[in-house]
Amino acid sequence: MSQFPVIAVVGSGAVGGYYGAKLAKAGHDVHFLMRGDYETVAREGLRVRSCDGDFALSPQTIHVYDDSRRMPKADLVIVALKSTAPNAGDLVEPLVKDNTAILTLQNGLGNEERLAERFGPTRILGGLAFVCINRIAPGVIHHMEHGLVRLGEFTGGDSPRARAIVERFVASGVKCEVLDSLLYGRWLKLVWNIPFNGLGAALDLTTDRLVGSEAGLSIVRRLMEEVIEAALAHGLTFRPDLIEHQIALTREMGAYRTSMQIDREESRPMEVEAIFAEPLRRARERGVAAPTLQSLLDLLRVVDAASTAAR
Amino acid sequence: MSQFPVIAVVGSGAVGGYYGAKLAKAGHDVHFLMRGDYETVAREGLRVRSCDGDFALSPQTIHVYDDSRRMPKADLVIVALKSTAPNAGDLVEPLVKDNTAILTLQNGLGNEERLAERFGPTRILGGLAFVCINRIAPGVIHHMEHGLVRLGEFTGGDSPRARAIVERFVASGVKCEVLDSLLYGRWLKLVWNIPFNGLGAALDLTTDRLVGSEAGLSIVRRLMEEVIEAALAHGLTFRPDLIEHQIALTREMGAYRTSMQIDREESRPMEVEAIFAEPLRRARERGVAAPTLQSLLDLLRVVDAASTAAR
Repeated sequence: MSQFPVIAVVGSGAVGGYYGAKLAKAGHDVHFLMRGDYETVAREGLRVRSCDGDFALSPQTIHVYDDSRRMPKADLVIVALKSTAPNAGDLVEPLVKDNTAILTLQNGLGNEERLAERFGPTRILGGLAFVCINRIAPGVIHHMEHGLVRLGEFTGGDSPRARAIVERFVASGVKCEVLDSLLYGRWLKLVWNIPFNGLGAALDLTTDRLVGSEAGLSIVRRLMEEVIEAALAHGLTFRPDLIEHQIALTREMGAYRTSMQIDREESRPMEVEAIFAEPLRRARERGVAAPTLQSLLDLLRVVDAASTAAR
Repeated sequence: MSQFPVIAVVGSGAVGGYYGAKLAKAGHDVHFLMRGDYETVAREGLRVRSCDGDFALSPQTIHVYDDSRRMPKADLVIVALKSTAPNAGDLVEPLVKDNTAILTLQNGLGNEERLAERFGPTRILGGLAFVCINRIAPGVIHHMEHGLVRLGEFTGGDSPRARAIVERFVASGVKCEVLDSLLYGRWLKLVWNIPFNGLGAALDLTTDRLVGSEAGLSIVRRLMEEVIEAALAHGLTFRPDLIEHQIALTREMGAYRTSMQIDREESRPMEVEAIFAEPLRRARERGVAAPTLQSLLDLLRVVDAASTAAR
């Protein structure tokens, strides 16, 4: 733990709460910034119902705050805010000292860039969480499946620092690995997220419905092709059977409700900018038109606005 | 009644049942072909709960059949099947004699053409029903609002025969008028139906959500522009402020659930071919690309397939 004596988790919803709790349970000095759940967690602690075994952080041992200006400076800041949060930088600012590493686990593209602009690119790492998880009540997280984190340096991928963080996660019982290229990891995840989160939320259909008809498969494949084309234009390469491989994996998931479909149902903001608009912007920068992605983005903006109106 | 002594209604769901019942109540000799509701109506009659006053056709007076081969030949056949019914022609065939007029009240484009191919174009008329109506139980129709029928000859629009049918409707308490151009009427209705039925069903949003954001208005306008462009390419013209006029009317409707959104919710077949695919085909024939309509059609096929799978 020597390299990261103080760890801060900013945005302790399901993802931040879960990974922070795993690190804390393993003996790390973890400080959680919470908003909505602050009072409940301060009073009752944080409970994790997990497929790997339930556990809890008691109110006596957990360090929880509702204002990052009252938190100690951190050696590692884990940012697990939704990408729709407008003020990530302001929340992180008070936690930063010399050599603070900032790891963002946020979805989509553009999150590292925004943090890099404010705190300098060399501080920033990005990670992808492959986890099926939900906050089911204030201070109660339900971890249903998986949990792998893949992370890397914003400025590259592998580094001693990235490996040290991976080692801390692994020692805390979290599957974790270094990404040789963070950019590759992000685009690879988008190949799945864009069709399934996007169509799932726009049409309000579970994944089995999207891969259950030729009409659905045709749009899923077209979206994947456009994302891959954009990624290729950024110098990345993928396995040649990636599309059919991802569709086969999706079939195995059954009637899966993506996080964005759940956001829609619960009238929460949808991560439209980071997962759809920013990838489309980057596709266009490299001359890739991605018309199906454009249409999907247009529809998601309608659904997101309707959902906002329902709040 | 001299001109149409025997009237047959083929497909007596909400629309056919309602207009047929109005004609029967006014003293016309109306014969109903029903499927699912046949036994209930034969036993209990047909009840109409209407904003214009409730009424019923008793089981003693109503003529109801479950097979058109047992029905008398008709002078006027009103086709009120969903456009998704594959066998309209087969059901109409036994009812046709010399001079039988066939009036289809089905939605979208292509219905008159299919009947004309089988029975000759001079027999065929088309009508548009502007009515807010639902079958709420077997043999029970709920007429909530409106009721106007606009009809015309397939081969043109106005004719003595069209005017005679209008006169029969009007004498039965149904607002009805002759269309100078059936084609104009059909395309005009599509200008509203394509964005609102289409987006409403694809995104599962009521009309107020579609006109309630800039994102929604932008797609609605784009779809209307494409439909109008296709109609212009067929030699039609519309009032210059048509789009804003239709949007203003839609705002007044509040949180309206279109028939296709209801079809989706009740896992019934959606009229994708007649309302979307056929207009797109005709747009393309005249060199109008209509890319937004194409995207919407693709998505509706996914939703319709998912809905079919749920049946």
